[in-house]
Amino acid sequence: MSLFEKFFGNKTSSAQEAKNRLTLMLAHERTINVPYMEAMKKEILEVIKKYTKAQKIDIKTDSNQNFNTLEVEILLEK
Amino acid sequence: MSLFEKFFGNKTSSAQEAKNRLTLMLAHERTINVPYMEAMKKEILEVIKKYTKAQKIDIKTDSNQNFNTLEVEILLEK
Repeated sequence: MSLFEKFFGNKTSSAQEAKNRLTLMLAHERTINVPYMEAMKKEILEVIKKYTKAQKIDIKTDSNQNFNTLEVEILLEK
Repeated sequence: MSLFEKFFGNKTSSAQEAKNRLTLMLAHERTINVPYMEAMKKEILEVIKKYTKAQKIDIKTDSNQNFNTLEVEILLEK
């Protein structure tokens, strides 16, 4: 199963909302040694903000025993 | 089910490889009107390249009837 299928395989959210949405996810194993991670995340967000005229940006971080993830959902202007 | 769970729920790839891997995904509906998408992708990749001392960067684009995705897998230096 591709990441693509995992991501969109059983999508149930509003079709109308999905039309204007851009999703970015960054994931890495917790134990990874990336001292620049926070700075890199910040700079990626700045690139997104610069290009998109976003109505709304949701930033969600998540982690479990093994992984840290950053999810960014951008609701674009119509 | 969260995106996090979708992504890592039934992960089967090599644990050793996963330890040094950073994954970024960008997804949007095909019909979305984002003339700046290619330029934005390029700039996000430049940020990643600047920060990571990557051994290897795999870039994969995928699409179906509804969605376009960009997956970037970065194998970091140890």
